[in-house]
Amino acid sequence: MTRNQPFPFSAIVGQDAMKTAMILTAIDPGIGGVLVFGDRGTGKSTAVRALAALLPPITVVHGSPTNAATPEDQPDWAETVPDVLVERPTPVVDLPLGATEDRVVGALDIERALTRGEKAFEPGLLARANRGYLYIDEVNLLEDHIVDLLLDVAQSGENVIEREGLSIRHDARFVLVGSGNPEEGELRPQLLDRFGLSVEVRSPNDVEERIEVIRRRAAFDADKSAFMDHWTAEDAKIREAILAARGRLAGVAAPDPTLRDCAELCIALGSDGLRGELTLLRTARALAAYLGDPAVTRAHLRRVAPMALSHRLRRDPLDEAGSSTRVSRTVEDVFA
Amino acid sequence: MTRNQPFPFSAIVGQDAMKTAMILTAIDPGIGGVLVFGDRGTGKSTAVRALAALLPPITVVHGSPTNAATPEDQPDWAETVPDVLVERPTPVVDLPLGATEDRVVGALDIERALTRGEKAFEPGLLARANRGYLYIDEVNLLEDHIVDLLLDVAQSGENVIEREGLSIRHDARFVLVGSGNPEEGELRPQLLDRFGLSVEVRSPNDVEERIEVIRRRAAFDADKSAFMDHWTAEDAKIREAILAARGRLAGVAAPDPTLRDCAELCIALGSDGLRGELTLLRTARALAAYLGDPAVTRAHLRRVAPMALSHRLRRDPLDEAGSSTRVSRTVEDVFA
Amino acid sequence: MTRNQPFPFSAIVGQDAMKTAMILTAIDPGIGGVLVFGDRGTGKSTAVRALAALLPPITVVHGSPTNAATPEDQPDWAETVPDVLVERPTPVVDLPLGATEDRVVGALDIERALTRGEKAFEPGLLARANRGYLYIDEVNLLEDHIVDLLLDVAQSGENVIEREGLSIRHDARFVLVGSGNPEEGELRPQLLDRFGLSVEVRSPNDVEERIEVIRRRAAFDADKSAFMDHWTAEDAKIREAILAARGRLAGVAAPDPTLRDCAELCIALGSDGLRGELTLLRTARALAAYLGDPAVTRAHLRRVAPMALSHRLRRDPLDEAGSSTRVSRTVEDVFA
Amino acid sequence: MTRNQPFPFSAIVGQDAMKTAMILTAIDPGIGGVLVFGDRGTGKSTAVRALAALLPPITVVHGSPTNAATPEDQPDWAETVPDVLVERPTPVVDLPLGATEDRVVGALDIERALTRGEKAFEPGLLARANRGYLYIDEVNLLEDHIVDLLLDVAQSGENVIEREGLSIRHDARFVLVGSGNPEEGELRPQLLDRFGLSVEVRSPNDVEERIEVIRRRAAFDADKSAFMDHWTAEDAKIREAILAARGRLAGVAAPDPTLRDCAELCIALGSDGLRGELTLLRTARALAAYLGDPAVTRAHLRRVAPMALSHRLRRDPLDEAGSSTRVSRTVEDVFA
Amino acid sequence: MTRNQPFPFSAIVGQDAMKTAMILTAIDPGIGGVLVFGDRGTGKSTAVRALAALLPPITVVHGSPTNAATPEDQPDWAETVPDVLVERPTPVVDLPLGATEDRVVGALDIERALTRGEKAFEPGLLARANRGYLYIDEVNLLEDHIVDLLLDVAQSGENVIEREGLSIRHDARFVLVGSGNPEEGELRPQLLDRFGLSVEVRSPNDVEERIEVIRRRAAFDADKSAFMDHWTAEDAKIREAILAARGRLAGVAAPDPTLRDCAELCIALGSDGLRGELTLLRTARALAAYLGDPAVTRAHLRRVAPMALSHRLRRDPLDEAGSSTRVSRTVEDVFA
Amino acid sequence: MTRNQPFPFSAIVGQDAMKTAMILTAIDPGIGGVLVFGDRGTGKSTAVRALAALLPPITVVHGSPTNAATPEDQPDWAETVPDVLVERPTPVVDLPLGATEDRVVGALDIERALTRGEKAFEPGLLARANRGYLYIDEVNLLEDHIVDLLLDVAQSGENVIEREGLSIRHDARFVLVGSGNPEEGELRPQLLDRFGLSVEVRSPNDVEERIEVIRRRAAFDADKSAFMDHWTAEDAKIREAILAARGRLAGVAAPDPTLRDCAELCIALGSDGLRGELTLLRTARALAAYLGDPAVTRAHLRRVAPMALSHRLRRDPLDEAGSSTRVSRTVEDVFA
Repeated sequence: MTRNQPFPFSAIVGQDAMKTAMILTAIDPGIGGVLVFGDRGTGKSTAVRALAALLPPITVVHGSPTNAATPEDQPDWAETVPDVLVERPTPVVDLPLGATEDRVVGALDIERALTRGEKAFEPGLLARANRGYLYIDEVNLLEDHIVDLLLDVAQSGENVIEREGLSIRHDARFVLVGSGNPEEGELRPQLLDRFGLSVEVRSPNDVEERIEVIRRRAAFDADKSAFMDHWTAEDAKIREAILAARGRLAGVAAPDPTLRDCAELCIALGSDGLRGELTLLRTARALAAYLGDPAVTRAHLRRVAPMALSHRLRRDPLDEAGSSTRVSRTVEDVFA
Repeated sequence: MTRNQPFPFSAIVGQDAMKTAMILTAIDPGIGGVLVFGDRGTGKSTAVRALAALLPPITVVHGSPTNAATPEDQPDWAETVPDVLVERPTPVVDLPLGATEDRVVGALDIERALTRGEKAFEPGLLARANRGYLYIDEVNLLEDHIVDLLLDVAQSGENVIEREGLSIRHDARFVLVGSGNPEEGELRPQLLDRFGLSVEVRSPNDVEERIEVIRRRAAFDADKSAFMDHWTAEDAKIREAILAARGRLAGVAAPDPTLRDCAELCIALGSDGLRGELTLLRTARALAAYLGDPAVTRAHLRRVAPMALSHRLRRDPLDEAGSSTRVSRTVEDVFA
Repeated sequence: MTRNQPFPFSAIVGQDAMKTAMILTAIDPGIGGVLVFGDRGTGKSTAVRALAALLPPITVVHGSPTNAATPEDQPDWAETVPDVLVERPTPVVDLPLGATEDRVVGALDIERALTRGEKAFEPGLLARANRGYLYIDEVNLLEDHIVDLLLDVAQSGENVIEREGLSIRHDARFVLVGSGNPEEGELRPQLLDRFGLSVEVRSPNDVEERIEVIRRRAAFDADKSAFMDHWTAEDAKIREAILAARGRLAGVAAPDPTLRDCAELCIALGSDGLRGELTLLRTARALAAYLGDPAVTRAHLRRVAPMALSHRLRRDPLDEAGSSTRVSRTVEDVFA
Repeated sequence: MTRNQPFPFSAIVGQDAMKTAMILTAIDPGIGGVLVFGDRGTGKSTAVRALAALLPPITVVHGSPTNAATPEDQPDWAETVPDVLVERPTPVVDLPLGATEDRVVGALDIERALTRGEKAFEPGLLARANRGYLYIDEVNLLEDHIVDLLLDVAQSGENVIEREGLSIRHDARFVLVGSGNPEEGELRPQLLDRFGLSVEVRSPNDVEERIEVIRRRAAFDADKSAFMDHWTAEDAKIREAILAARGRLAGVAAPDPTLRDCAELCIALGSDGLRGELTLLRTARALAAYLGDPAVTRAHLRRVAPMALSHRLRRDPLDEAGSSTRVSRTVEDVFA
Repeated sequence: MTRNQPFPFSAIVGQDAMKTAMILTAIDPGIGGVLVFGDRGTGKSTAVRALAALLPPITVVHGSPTNAATPEDQPDWAETVPDVLVERPTPVVDLPLGATEDRVVGALDIERALTRGEKAFEPGLLARANRGYLYIDEVNLLEDHIVDLLLDVAQSGENVIEREGLSIRHDARFVLVGSGNPEEGELRPQLLDRFGLSVEVRSPNDVEERIEVIRRRAAFDADKSAFMDHWTAEDAKIREAILAARGRLAGVAAPDPTLRDCAELCIALGSDGLRGELTLLRTARALAAYLGDPAVTRAHLRRVAPMALSHRLRRDPLDEAGSSTRVSRTVEDVFA
Repeated sequence: MTRNQPFPFSAIVGQDAMKTAMILTAIDPGIGGVLVFGDRGTGKSTAVRALAALLPPITVVHGSPTNAATPEDQPDWAETVPDVLVERPTPVVDLPLGATEDRVVGALDIERALTRGEKAFEPGLLARANRGYLYIDEVNLLEDHIVDLLLDVAQSGENVIEREGLSIRHDARFVLVGSGNPEEGELRPQLLDRFGLSVEVRSPNDVEERIEVIRRRAAFDADKSAFMDHWTAEDAKIREAILAARGRLAGVAAPDPTLRDCAELCIALGSDGLRGELTLLRTARALAAYLGDPAVTRAHLRRVAPMALSHRLRRDPLDEAGSSTRVSRTVEDVFA
């Protein structure tokens, strides 16, 4: 039991959308990053740290700087490693505010490489995040070009560093999780659209729920071991369900009426581009896999539409409803 | 089949203007760069990557940093190479946001050259783009002086780096493709005018078209090999047509009435300078070559006028029509 | 008696809230940092320096750069030390305006580490503040990212420095005390919320109180030894009470009605997030321990609510009362 | 016939004022720099490049970094050269946007000079422009202090670099040609006044003229050799006329009534300072020499007054006529 | 008689408040810094330079970089010195506009210290100012953090430089004298409050006084020796009086009614914090010592109140009187 | 006859105030710097360069970097020189726009000095200007702190460079001449006041005067030798008069009524500070010496008052007269 034992994922009170989004991207990382909107103090960073402990461990080549699954996956610029596989927790890497590009993508020392022929690449946070999660607190405070770079890498699954003719590359497949406070500057619509899902978290207004939060937190602070004894089992159940869903994912069908539902929904919402329907379909498929359903249905679309589409709406000054509400309302209209 | 297999060019649903502009500049790179306006998510970068796979391969001297076609074309600052020719895909180089001037034009290490007499030039992205395409996502976010520099090089076909008395040069003939979002800051009219063509892409509003997009994308994600089997043949047809058009280009006539049409059209549109009519004529000639027509006619001018002229109009606050529409309308008036 | 002998804590006239907040965080540092608002000249920095002398000494490994309590706690990057324990005053470290991030977190000399394999970490102010207090005068003038970093470290109790693959860490458990002048720019609500407590200090308006201030100060300036003879005993009493309270802290009960009081109070105040009730409970528990009470009661909550909650209110332009007053009023409403 | 064969000067359609200004400064470089105002695409840079081919060649010491005419003119910091004279084209040097001061004036490496006593000066663009032209595209985008520096050197004919006690100098006699777009920020009146001449270029509004432009350009693009065969002879005629005019220049008289005309004209225009009349006289004298006339007359003044004076007028908000028109009108009034 | 012989203090015509403030801080440096407000040309810098010559010499260890009074006071980072005491003029150090922090506090060369174990501290202006005066012309143009740093050091009497684990310290007890022009940006109230005294200087409006100024200055310029012969004796009288007052200072009584006067005066003026009354008392005590009075009386308070309090008033937009006048008026009200 | 032969001082048409100011400061450099206001093209820089040729030569130690008059004056950081005296033209040094502080005051290479004990000071422009003139074109574009530094040095006559404990000093007695354009930003009143004199130059409005300017300039350009033959003699007369006036200067009386006139004039004008009357007296004395008069009279004051006082007036928005006119008018009122 380390001093920094995270709070268990399953002990988080409420916040279902956020937890679902994290589970679905754990099932299919191809859904893309998750944006979590909400005020400070609503447990966003607690949830991400909890996620680290919940996720299934990964098998990696011992000593690999990129968490390579096999010696073949070890990048050529890294030292060769013996074929020893070990289990590691799924990496959840924090991107600190003010991190430089070098620190994120890795630092390439041209002079050393040219003059001494030595290994000259110091991998960055993207290498460490491979096969896991990269968490950015207050993503709206990060410079746009870093966000853009992160989204590019997240999408291509590969980090390529080119400097003056040298080219270094390594796998960088991870899910980006960014938290943001809508009151503190916004992301450009360009960037918003490149996140797969978005969810909103709020402080609960229900007294019992808040008491439950305080009670659990106080119990956790008072005696971490006893608290964990109980909740570790709960976390394990979710972990097993994720692993099972991964296995079922490829087999989930997406019939034509479902495709038409996706397209009509996005046209009705007037969302720019085609990322909306592609993400909606993919997320719904992950949900179906999680629930053990054989094909994507309207029920799945209905549940994931707000998280897949609400950050892709144009602002409507005449409609005071929040964007999640507008998505849900449109779903009902289209599916009626 | 690599992990990063691009989506095939011919499988792109709709977006005819963009595809035509890319084909015509592949036939005659002297038309100049292409600006693609449109929201994120409309497949601009997908199209550029698709283009890379579509274009005819080029024959290059093995090991040449500038894709030299013959040993004579190898720049003198590069290592001498044996006369071994190989085929390579037409290069399509991405210019990353935030690229430094050194990375673009190449880095010249004066001190090394002076003190050690060593090769001191590390070629940049312009060398790699020679004989191909240079793609800039969100060109409107790039600094003006870099855009200016790129346009200068694209126009002269040569990259000249001069530092303190040293002068390095190499061929840099490429087509610049820039994507931009009209909602995010604009290019200076000075820069706009230096692009040869401009096209606009929009999300389709037709349900069937959108379903087709989802269906193809889902099929591609599900089984890339099967998908490519079908579309590779389609791409090959376009490639052959481009090669044939290149051969016919010099023989396409431009009779005097055509010149007069060009001039009158530009005067009617009030476009500044003379780049408008020169580009219009050149693009129409490429289209005629593509279609196998012996001479440029009004039909050709009519089709390419919007892409050749719409970014050269002055804004008219009293005319709410888009600039493409205004060009087409004026074409009808002048040709009436 | 050094030339810089601080003024004794117990001789400070008035300023009860500030003194209480300091005492309670000395009992339970987990409450978090303290923000002290008020004009210059109201004795804020005097109080912090006084606190240094008041606090119980700590036992540290001789020569430890992080005030390690045992040889095991000595960080691995520091020199090994013999198992010699000494007593030191509780550290109170001043963070100078304009301090660089390197100076705060420590400087990591990558090149030295890589090329010579030498110890390359020079610990910063956070190392020196371990197990004590870090004082920031005019915290509102500090750059946000430094404040954020300080709050992150204060919360996690650990300072982690990562540069290009190297990772250095050491304990950094301290209470952050920041003074600020509300007239000179404000902290972002995000940062405000992360401080545990806030208190306001004002110049006294009572003549007798002010005369007493002048008299004590003049006496202190005139003959420090005589003055200290008297007040050192007073300080010792407070120190003993703190030590006793620390021992009792774990045993103080927090019954369910108390949890409900906390939650209802925060809902009534509309404070964002859940940090409000968690801090309120923790502070009240420290007060109960200080007073020797067996369980947290409404009396404790009433006394600490203003310092735990007033910096978490949203501004209410229609309510001209100060935020402390609004908290107290709401306490009375909810407890009525 | 190089790949970058410039378009011939004499084949430029229209644009008489610009061509005349360039010819006159080629006859008497002491007239000073030329500002060319006009939108992009009006052939400004084409004209400057054409000028390079038109101008008479110069005789230079072989290997001289400053185009020295005799071994005595070779600067002392350059290597001594054998007395071998060669012909070179008149240099026309492009000043790239964003050029640093070092690149313009030359770089002086103090440390090398002091510690090794070695030649430590790398000449810049000013050295290369000696005895020729220096062209700045979009001079209004250049930093004021660089423009100022260029004008200082152009006026004194000498480039002096002083750094910490070292002093390097070399001839730098050149004509500055700057193009500018009046819609994109303006030059300070201080700088305007220091250019000798200014001309404005516009897109032609005449259809036949525009067709002629397209026709010539298309002919040039289609078969450069055939095109040049014709126009090279035309260029040669202008070149001969320039050389003849240079020989006649000193003998052209400037009688007192001409001086009075110059003064009265400038007083009537209210131009600041005395550069107006001095330049007017000098330019008129060059025109007289070009035309083979023995003395400066009102006819010469009338023709060159707009280019010599229009950039020296104060703006008159009540007079909507362009400044060239205002100059011409005033000429008629004064000469009436 | 050096070329830069300063004008004698006693020969300054008028400007009583400024001269008194300088004398009182010479008697008790603990009063704190002096702010001198007024237009250029009113003799502020002349007065400070005159002060240098007036002040009693100090006894210092020969060769001490910090003007140490005894070998024990020599800082440990400086070379050991033999026990040779010499007299030096009281230092008056000018802080030049644009001085860097390194130059002010001293430069610590970490690398040298670490790699060579050599003395690596080059003391700055604060070391040279120890036991004297530090003069800042136009203090309002200095960066706030430098002013803050200077005030911190002036108050603590010690300069502490900490860089990456190294800590250097030395005595730095000096009086800060800052001149400022109220028309050119103001000091933050925070900084104002930390100066002990403030005085205002104005150009005299009396003709005879101005003639006297011209006459003395002309005499000084004409024959410095003759002029100094006369005024040196006057300066000596003031110097003796200061020395005598220092001896009497500790014995001057501050009875309770005086403390009450101080407190009531500051409450009536509404000055923030308690620095006002503490400084008022201390300054009045110095004046009493200068005048040879046994105890502080209302007469002393009345005379020094404007210089001790006027810079601590809040601006009152309804009261057009200057702040000195407002202080005097309030004194009369309170003492009535 | 060098290529850069300056135009002779005496051949400058008109501009009496500027020429007088330059002559008077040549007689008594203690008057202080001269500000020349006026538009470009009015011959300001021509006049300064002319001044260089006019001024009497100075005797200097051969090889001295500071133009030392005797070996004793040679600064100790410079190489020792043999006692060989030579004549040099009075230095007139140009301060280029954008000059760094190092270039102005000299560069002190601390590291070299400390590690190698070598001469480490490279004197700057101030050393070269010693005993001469320092000219700043467009002084209003220079950074304030450089102007301030220049004025400080000009006033003290000594350049002191202090870096980390090293102190270098050398004589730097020179007259600062700054040209400025009142339309382009203004100097701070603080800086204005520190210049001794100010004059305004305008383009002449008289046709004959302008013709004369053109005629002389044309003659100078046509045949410099012939032109100089005539004017060199005129320049020599002025030079002799300056030398004679220097000898007479100390003997010129300044009776009491003159002092009273100075004081009354400045009070009437409301000029801040006392620099006004001190400069007025000193300038009038130089004029008297130039004219061979035994004492300063009202006639002298009347003539120099505008140049000594007009830049010290406060702006009066109700008085549209120029400041020179206001000074002259006040002189008449006071002297009436």
